[in-house]
Amino acid sequence: MSAASRAKRNDPELEVTVLERSHDVSYSACGMPYNIAEPEREIDDLVVRQASVFREKQKINLLTGYEVTSLNTRNRSVSGRSETEGEFTLSYDKLLIATGASPIVPEIPGVDSPGVLTLKSLNDGREIKRYLKDHSVRRVVIIGMGYIALEMCEALRRRDIKVELVKPRPRLLPWMDETLSDVVRREIEENGATLYPGQTIERIIRRDDERALDVVCSRQTLTADMVLLAIGVTPNSQLAEKAGLELSVRNAIAVDRCLRTSDPDIFAAGDCADSPHEITGKKRYIPLALRANRSGWAVADTVSGRETEVQGVLGTSVFRVFDLEIARTGLSLSEAIEEGFAPETVSIKTRSRAHAHPGSTPIYLQMVGDKKTGRLLGVQMVGQEGVAHRINAVAVALHAKMTVEGFSQSDLAYAPPFSPVWDPLLTTANQLVKRMK
Amino acid sequence: MSAASRAKRNDPELEVTVLERSHDVSYSACGMPYNIAEPEREIDDLVVRQASVFREKQKINLLTGYEVTSLNTRNRSVSGRSETEGEFTLSYDKLLIATGASPIVPEIPGVDSPGVLTLKSLNDGREIKRYLKDHSVRRVVIIGMGYIALEMCEALRRRDIKVELVKPRPRLLPWMDETLSDVVRREIEENGATLYPGQTIERIIRRDDERALDVVCSRQTLTADMVLLAIGVTPNSQLAEKAGLELSVRNAIAVDRCLRTSDPDIFAAGDCADSPHEITGKKRYIPLALRANRSGWAVADTVSGRETEVQGVLGTSVFRVFDLEIARTGLSLSEAIEEGFAPETVSIKTRSRAHAHPGSTPIYLQMVGDKKTGRLLGVQMVGQEGVAHRINAVAVALHAKMTVEGFSQSDLAYAPPFSPVWDPLLTTANQLVKRMK
Repeated sequence: MSAASRAKRNDPELEVTVLERSHDVSYSACGMPYNIAEPEREIDDLVVRQASVFREKQKINLLTGYEVTSLNTRNRSVSGRSETEGEFTLSYDKLLIATGASPIVPEIPGVDSPGVLTLKSLNDGREIKRYLKDHSVRRVVIIGMGYIALEMCEALRRRDIKVELVKPRPRLLPWMDETLSDVVRREIEENGATLYPGQTIERIIRRDDERALDVVCSRQTLTADMVLLAIGVTPNSQLAEKAGLELSVRNAIAVDRCLRTSDPDIFAAGDCADSPHEITGKKRYIPLALRANRSGWAVADTVSGRETEVQGVLGTSVFRVFDLEIARTGLSLSEAIEEGFAPETVSIKTRSRAHAHPGSTPIYLQMVGDKKTGRLLGVQMVGQEGVAHRINAVAVALHAKMTVEGFSQSDLAYAPPFSPVWDPLLTTANQLVKRMK
Repeated sequence: MSAASRAKRNDPELEVTVLERSHDVSYSACGMPYNIAEPEREIDDLVVRQASVFREKQKINLLTGYEVTSLNTRNRSVSGRSETEGEFTLSYDKLLIATGASPIVPEIPGVDSPGVLTLKSLNDGREIKRYLKDHSVRRVVIIGMGYIALEMCEALRRRDIKVELVKPRPRLLPWMDETLSDVVRREIEENGATLYPGQTIERIIRRDDERALDVVCSRQTLTADMVLLAIGVTPNSQLAEKAGLELSVRNAIAVDRCLRTSDPDIFAAGDCADSPHEITGKKRYIPLALRANRSGWAVADTVSGRETEVQGVLGTSVFRVFDLEIARTGLSLSEAIEEGFAPETVSIKTRSRAHAHPGSTPIYLQMVGDKKTGRLLGVQMVGQEGVAHRINAVAVALHAKMTVEGFSQSDLAYAPPFSPVWDPLLTTANQLVKRMK
């Protein structure tokens, strides 16, 4: 919808048709866990713009309930089925594939039982909310421990629901320095949720008599009224693949810096497409909202005649779990090693505010630099305040290819309620500079 | 003390003598307004490190109560008077002048009356606290409306003291876009303080009978139990000037990137010295804590044999007034014009959090760019949350000499509790890019 809106703004004469399988077209997907936390809020609060606005005010030919099932690149057309009109075929001059991603559903027996849900689309959120309302859900098992799993853990705990999280890999947030991920682990446990890492999930059994679900894991069985699958997403690239378009890492649709696929008339943007990483230049699959929006705009501009490139990604992200903010940008230590850098790292604990200023809380940082070039490669951060926006200073430094020493010289803001004289970022950089010498 | 400590860490054999006129050597000066806000807190809570620690643990020859009154660059010695030892003369191989700054006291009759106070040193803070305790202070007039004036306004209002602020210039925060400074003005007024800009202060009269002070201004007379002068500071450069060292802008001691004065054996750092501005390269007097600390370290490193440069400043700063965070970095519109740029600017109001996320508050930004080069020149920001750390992303971009368009492509963090998908910084940059085309 970002692309469609911008294309019509750029050129009101352009004929823009959007084919959407569902009936939800513009909503804040990332806001769903916070909405689910509040039973009295309508899930449709998350709708940013109604379909009617796109149709009537923006003159976009928005067709909802239209599922595209095939793409013919030779005669430049798409075909599929509409809920109301039956089969359809539409031709295009330029095509944008913005099919998004789908939650990964593990192939285990019982995974399709009623009460086993996922969270990606607004309809998923709607179903979770309805399920929580219609059934007396007192216990939820979440499979996965990524940011959606943890945000949903918080949301459900706020509704006073017992939450257990289980996953096969042995560590919470494996990309994170263990001193930092331990802080997150304690926060989750102190808020009454239980973590079971390092357990394979073997099957889900629905007991018909009492509607309970048994999640049978390698070392124990967890019982729940609802199970949430949150082990990540996979790009919806089947349509592109069948049409012969090039895919790349993790089956994402391969695009260039203008979001062009291997067919010059076809673009792909959002969670179905790959991205170049700003530091390594290599293709990565990091489906996040800002990149999706920005790519939509760029495609619109290119199609409107102004060829527009989009910068690569740094994987900058932040999420909240209870009272903690957790953020990262750039490469983790293990990623830096994989990418052939000679990384040095420092991990510190400091305070969020000035000496003796009331309300100061601990803040934890890890910073990674490259010994060979001195270059800053990435930062991870955990704390109760000042984490979410602090990470952005590092993101900008990474775009600018700063060295750790250069970054350590930054003239950052200081006032006692907000940081020590030396911002935690600078303290960390100062220590890393010393270590890299 | 930063320089002395680091020099001893670098080289424990180095003989380091510190001559300090007062008896306070290491304290959080910026924390004073927040401490003054709380009657029950001791002002000495702000002491970071006791003199005894410097002496006994760090083996620094720290002499307090020693005032240096002359500097002889020819035979490399300083002389003065000690409270306990009388006159003294000490020779040096390398000298660091770190004499700081003094509050500007306007030359008006009655300015030396009891109850007319300033706030710069810990002793000033001590005196304000004592005055508030010993007298029944119900009304304070603050002369000045800079960040110390406004922080003290908040501190005194928290103690339920009536506060009136007066100054000659017509606008609150004249460096700030008026749509932003109006938000600050409303915040101050809503918190019960009164602003009288555009009034010259003619005299202060102390009524002996009732200990009240009349502040006679051009259009009215304000009556107070205590008057605070907060119209800025001036560098303590008299010693340097008498010794023939070069001064620069606003009488600050002129230093190079290694903090060397015009005498190669003499360094100056902190609020007594000037700084090169990162954007213009020109000398500026922007006395702030981080620059002072960083300069102290650099001088120590240079003196220890590792010639160390310090980057210039951007004037990045933040302060809080009641529930508002106010931040800036780089050039304002008028500064950009003065410096010969062809500035374009955009000023927006947006939200601090994602669509439909609870707790969202307005955030106001102004961004300045150079039309000729596309370069980002500065940002100002006001809001209830996320301002203090957000400004740092801009500071890093300014160090990296990014264009507005380059900055607008930054991969910044997003989660609904912390920002919209497009961070307010990106929204502002996007609009400025369009305007600059």
